[in-house]
Amino acid sequence: MTDFVQAASQVMTWCNELGAVSQADYVDRRYLTEQHRQANDLVAHWMQQAGCKTWEDGAANLWGRYESDNENAQRFILGSHLDTVPNGGKYDGMLGVLAPIAVVNYLHSHNIRLPFHIDIVGFGDEEGTRFGSTLLGSRALTGQWQKEWADLADSEGITLSQAMSNFGLSFANIGNSKITNPSGLLGYLEIHIEQGPVLEDKNLPVGIVTAINGARRFWFDIEGFAGHAGTVPMGLRQDALAASAEMILAVESIAAEFGVVATVGAIENRPNGVNVISGKTRFSLDIRSEDDRLRDRAFDAILAKLESIAEHRNTGLTYTQTHSANAVSCAPELQAMLTQAINNADFTPYSLSSGAGHDAMAIADICDVAMMFVRCYKGISHHPAESIKTHDVEASLIVLHQFLLLLSEQYSTTK
Amino acid sequence: MTDFVQAASQVMTWCNELGAVSQADYVDRRYLTEQHRQANDLVAHWMQQAGCKTWEDGAANLWGRYESDNENAQRFILGSHLDTVPNGGKYDGMLGVLAPIAVVNYLHSHNIRLPFHIDIVGFGDEEGTRFGSTLLGSRALTGQWQKEWADLADSEGITLSQAMSNFGLSFANIGNSKITNPSGLLGYLEIHIEQGPVLEDKNLPVGIVTAINGARRFWFDIEGFAGHAGTVPMGLRQDALAASAEMILAVESIAAEFGVVATVGAIENRPNGVNVISGKTRFSLDIRSEDDRLRDRAFDAILAKLESIAEHRNTGLTYTQTHSANAVSCAPELQAMLTQAINNADFTPYSLSSGAGHDAMAIADICDVAMMFVRCYKGISHHPAESIKTHDVEASLIVLHQFLLLLSEQYSTTK
Repeated sequence: MTDFVQAASQVMTWCNELGAVSQADYVDRRYLTEQHRQANDLVAHWMQQAGCKTWEDGAANLWGRYESDNENAQRFILGSHLDTVPNGGKYDGMLGVLAPIAVVNYLHSHNIRLPFHIDIVGFGDEEGTRFGSTLLGSRALTGQWQKEWADLADSEGITLSQAMSNFGLSFANIGNSKITNPSGLLGYLEIHIEQGPVLEDKNLPVGIVTAINGARRFWFDIEGFAGHAGTVPMGLRQDALAASAEMILAVESIAAEFGVVATVGAIENRPNGVNVISGKTRFSLDIRSEDDRLRDRAFDAILAKLESIAEHRNTGLTYTQTHSANAVSCAPELQAMLTQAINNADFTPYSLSSGAGHDAMAIADICDVAMMFVRCYKGISHHPAESIKTHDVEASLIVLHQFLLLLSEQYSTTK
Repeated sequence: MTDFVQAASQVMTWCNELGAVSQADYVDRRYLTEQHRQANDLVAHWMQQAGCKTWEDGAANLWGRYESDNENAQRFILGSHLDTVPNGGKYDGMLGVLAPIAVVNYLHSHNIRLPFHIDIVGFGDEEGTRFGSTLLGSRALTGQWQKEWADLADSEGITLSQAMSNFGLSFANIGNSKITNPSGLLGYLEIHIEQGPVLEDKNLPVGIVTAINGARRFWFDIEGFAGHAGTVPMGLRQDALAASAEMILAVESIAAEFGVVATVGAIENRPNGVNVISGKTRFSLDIRSEDDRLRDRAFDAILAKLESIAEHRNTGLTYTQTHSANAVSCAPELQAMLTQAINNADFTPYSLSSGAGHDAMAIADICDVAMMFVRCYKGISHHPAESIKTHDVEASLIVLHQFLLLLSEQYSTTK
């Protein structure tokens, strides 16, 4: 098991090196930029050193194949994304590309070939920071791109279509990146930092993801009546902010009661003066669960409570839904195999759902997907303080290695 | 009693005419502007028509004296301010200058002289909109101007000192406006729109002000821990906005319990993203009462509750006081006389405190003060929708007339 101490250090060094490839003083690497080119070239070099043959597809995703001896074997995909948010961290996405390279490098250096191809992929866009649309890399594999995306423009007015041309690609040819024979796919495993505090709270290095939660988002508008803070008695007020405060607490307690997560993250208040009773307040709601029906029942309960608060306080209440996505389940067989791999590695298996979206959501359209989370410091992500321990990376490499051995065993038995 | 029907219409016409003297499309008339000059000239003209001799003092306050036959009689001041907030109304301030002119005009047209001088004053600045410091007009009478105010600048960088020079005045000579013989003052009565909904709620045209409430203002800073809205379980959150929501409700309920008014009118939230748990939230608190000790006890109770919420939720809590002013009581004798005047006029006397600040606060330093509130539509002020009924203006004129008769009677008896 100690074979992965050096490999884990190597992954951390790669993360640092890759984190320096940025279009700003902070970590910032967006789709189809010069830094995207540099990152692909750098990672391709590490893939090649690990014994992979590399290529880029028509969406600028980087691929590295560690070939099976059997040319006609199925492919198992390991990967995540290589882009970052502005002022982000060095591990969100990158770890899921670099950890597999380190394990493949181990296999290569020990002259171990697997009965299936390992395809490591570094998606060019997951965050959607440049063009506003997320998962562009993985959705190119599943044929989900829309024609009108050609005109999506970045902050400088460069369209996705132009940016692809500048990168040596063609928007018109994006269909060629679609995986047209999903039967050739054995599955997909994504390693990712947790972006939450659960593994830290449980004191565990890794966790098995059960599902990627479905999310719904809303804006609520509360209409009260603005007034002078000194002259309107408490009993005659229609205070939109006080009504919102009561609603925010209701969201919190109903979410806990139903076992979902619900967040009021944004609030806008008018006129927002220290001596004026609030006339209008709007706030967001983000509600998620691995169980779509539970989430919807919790939302219905929240809405009923908010309506009753509005009625009681004589304020207006309107809302609009701005986003809705269903949960994506991880394949039970792959979850079971990850559990076995964690047991084999003498860690404690722990299952949790993913509250954040990942490339695996898109890939689930074409094959079975699994995800392994790695503990991260205080659950912080999308921030320079994003941090992981070398020891936890080592754990993830050991588990991934065990997982590949179990998968090889099963593949050899059943195919 | 019907003599004031026409007078009330006249006051409404004057309010409309004066409301048109503005530096913008909406009502906006600030201290020492060209529009201040125009307003003073217009109101001086109406004062003169009502039999007053007029002058301006060194702070650009407009005065109109309806002289007693006894040159050495005391002065009773009736007045309010002629400036407005930007996008304000036509009655806040102005009514307290124009209503006395209408009553004096009545006395003049009936050849009635009183045993004391009536001094009607239109203060040049109460709102403080131009230079940030409020009550400049009335504080000139009480000698409260500070030397450093010379450098207070408006939004265009013009200092108070420069603006006075431009208006033909001298900041250095402001001391000359101070009333140096307060024994010559019989008292001060200010008529003002209520700026609150209480008289409307009680279905009364006018009310007697007991005191101008003392106010304290604070900012509270809540420090939580930002996190991903999807990945942090409800039980592991330190949500600054949810904590603030609980605190805002506590402010509301403790204020009602103590019988004070307390308002959280402004809130700022960070990072304020729909998918991010709030890390930092700050909110204002404005707390007022006619009883300073009650207000302070209520604040102590609020603070204790907020600290307990912060401890329970594991968030930081700090606060700063940005303003503190004690309550100013209206003179009991003048309140009693107003009550009598309202009874004589066949209205129902109703006493209430003023939640907003007024010129009377400053004048209380040099003589007894009283205030009469006039019902306004929905309590709206500082807004174009500010509105009063002609019928209520008529009531205020009748009461003011009765008040002056009672005061004359008392003056003749006791002096």
